[in-house]
Amino acid sequence: MRAIVITRPGPPDVLELREVEAPWPARGEVRVAIEYAALNRADLLQRLGAYPAPPDAPADIPGMEYAGVVDAVGEGVRELAVGDRVFGIAGGGTYAEQVVLPAAVVARVPEGTSLEAAAAVPEAFLTAWDAMITQAGLTAGETVLVHAVGSGVGTAAVQIAKAIGARSIGTVRAGELADEKLARAAQLGMDHGLAVRGSGFAAEVLRLTGGAGADVVLELVGGAYLGEDLACAALRGRVLLVGLLAGARAELDLGLLLRRRIAIRGTVLRARPLEEKIGVARVLARHIAPLVASGALRPVIDRVFPLAEAARAHEHLASNAGFGKTLLRIR
Amino acid sequence: MRAIVITRPGPPDVLELREVEAPWPARGEVRVAIEYAALNRADLLQRLGAYPAPPDAPADIPGMEYAGVVDAVGEGVRELAVGDRVFGIAGGGTYAEQVVLPAAVVARVPEGTSLEAAAAVPEAFLTAWDAMITQAGLTAGETVLVHAVGSGVGTAAVQIAKAIGARSIGTVRAGELADEKLARAAQLGMDHGLAVRGSGFAAEVLRLTGGAGADVVLELVGGAYLGEDLACAALRGRVLLVGLLAGARAELDLGLLLRRRIAIRGTVLRARPLEEKIGVARVLARHIAPLVASGALRPVIDRVFPLAEAARAHEHLASNAGFGKTLLRIR
Repeated sequence: MRAIVITRPGPPDVLELREVEAPWPARGEVRVAIEYAALNRADLLQRLGAYPAPPDAPADIPGMEYAGVVDAVGEGVRELAVGDRVFGIAGGGTYAEQVVLPAAVVARVPEGTSLEAAAAVPEAFLTAWDAMITQAGLTAGETVLVHAVGSGVGTAAVQIAKAIGARSIGTVRAGELADEKLARAAQLGMDHGLAVRGSGFAAEVLRLTGGAGADVVLELVGGAYLGEDLACAALRGRVLLVGLLAGARAELDLGLLLRRRIAIRGTVLRARPLEEKIGVARVLARHIAPLVASGALRPVIDRVFPLAEAARAHEHLASNAGFGKTLLRIR
Repeated sequence: MRAIVITRPGPPDVLELREVEAPWPARGEVRVAIEYAALNRADLLQRLGAYPAPPDAPADIPGMEYAGVVDAVGEGVRELAVGDRVFGIAGGGTYAEQVVLPAAVVARVPEGTSLEAAAAVPEAFLTAWDAMITQAGLTAGETVLVHAVGSGVGTAAVQIAKAIGARSIGTVRAGELADEKLARAAQLGMDHGLAVRGSGFAAEVLRLTGGAGADVVLELVGGAYLGEDLACAALRGRVLLVGLLAGARAELDLGLLLRRRIAIRGTVLRARPLEEKIGVARVLARHIAPLVASGALRPVIDRVFPLAEAARAHEHLASNAGFGKTLLRIR
């Protein structure tokens, strides 16, 4: 099969399209013929050698999500059959024509949803759902602050918030694309948008919430943002740290954390044990897929590159100019 | 009634024994004739003017816990009667001969437990239980790291850990009393003790846990300790911040937080809404009191001062020389 291989750690041009041996499903596994894969920032880190794939994934083929068609099933697999349209998350290896996965972590694509749209769903909507709903317990009537609202996770988060009756405040970094990103996020259901210079957003979040602060913060930026999050988190607020675009060091006021009984929690979908991955796949099948089918959640596709242009796709994602997900068309 | 009054913000000698008007219970409330009150670090902060009492407590009479006898009940109170031996937590006002509280936040003292022993229970055991069990979900087979293990909360925490089948590692600051404190904590069920110089404990915690790290950290010290907690917390570890003896600023490695999916949560028992205080009182009655009655949890009393010597009691607590709770004998 054809696959994109990380030939050595380095810039985008270390990605090469190569012929590699196709995998074969063992007992309990299925093989998926991938139609579309989607990019994630973790792929850029993996390419740089800073984020190794977990042991159950190919070490040198990036790619953490896919949509495609089952083309082989291992022994003992009853829930899926050849020809089923499926999507989901993988530990790695989806910049390729085929990937093998445990059947229990694969979800069906709803009828009426294209595989292209489906490929833009798993990481973005699962990361947002797992952090905001499963872990932070965001619920109707609460307010969530979503940083980097133009990202795949950000665009998913404001839609999920709207779908469950919560209010969202989104931020983007001030700059030439800020107004356009905020306008598009508003179309997805974001209630208030802020273009942030430096890290000054706490006062505005407090104003927008009548002084109460944000019940949940979806933190994709990290760095100095985290200190500001504490300054505008509500009593018993929950800050979910899912990304570190702005860096990994933060100086915090622990007094705020204590007095306001705030929780900060780091989270990452990759590198979880199988039983948790099965739970995550169930969220995709039971909660997210129906909302995609009904149109309440709309996958946001920024650009689609052919597989051979994976290096250009990486450059595009790194530029931060996009809005929503960057896809690879595999075949 | 006689009560200790904070006459102005300042050193221990601003505490004065005065005659003040006794409170009277309204509908749903009871009045408790207090036999013993216990000291907390928050009392020292309140005396200094740095931690005002919540609105439902007297502004100038410190004291957040008590054991005594109901001496008057308001209308509509069915669950308690005059003469009942009770204990619990108050928003303030327990350095006094009487305090009035909602009946729903008052718990009965088990038969066979003295009021003196009972007064050493509520804040220490409830803070440890609420943080470790209710919030962090510590369970059998896990390891909890307990800082300041000689404190009231620390001595409670190692006993609770033992009672539920968890393993505990306790720390004290290195110094002349360190060995004695660790020996006494070991008698209470602590499995491993560390005397810490500066903030270097992570390597030893990792060694003691075979590299896995601590599942739960009960953080009473704050400051630089928090960064070390992250370095020795287990995957999905939970750090509960309940005190800031060493300061409120911390610089953290958010990458660790994210990759190891660690949660940091600030918590404080005081200044919670009534419905939560009722839940906390239920924990005292349903979980802690039976374990005190059975002898599995042993209140640790450091010293008992007469009410008139509250200033000396404050000096003693601030010296950090004690082990367990400092009490006031009210009458």
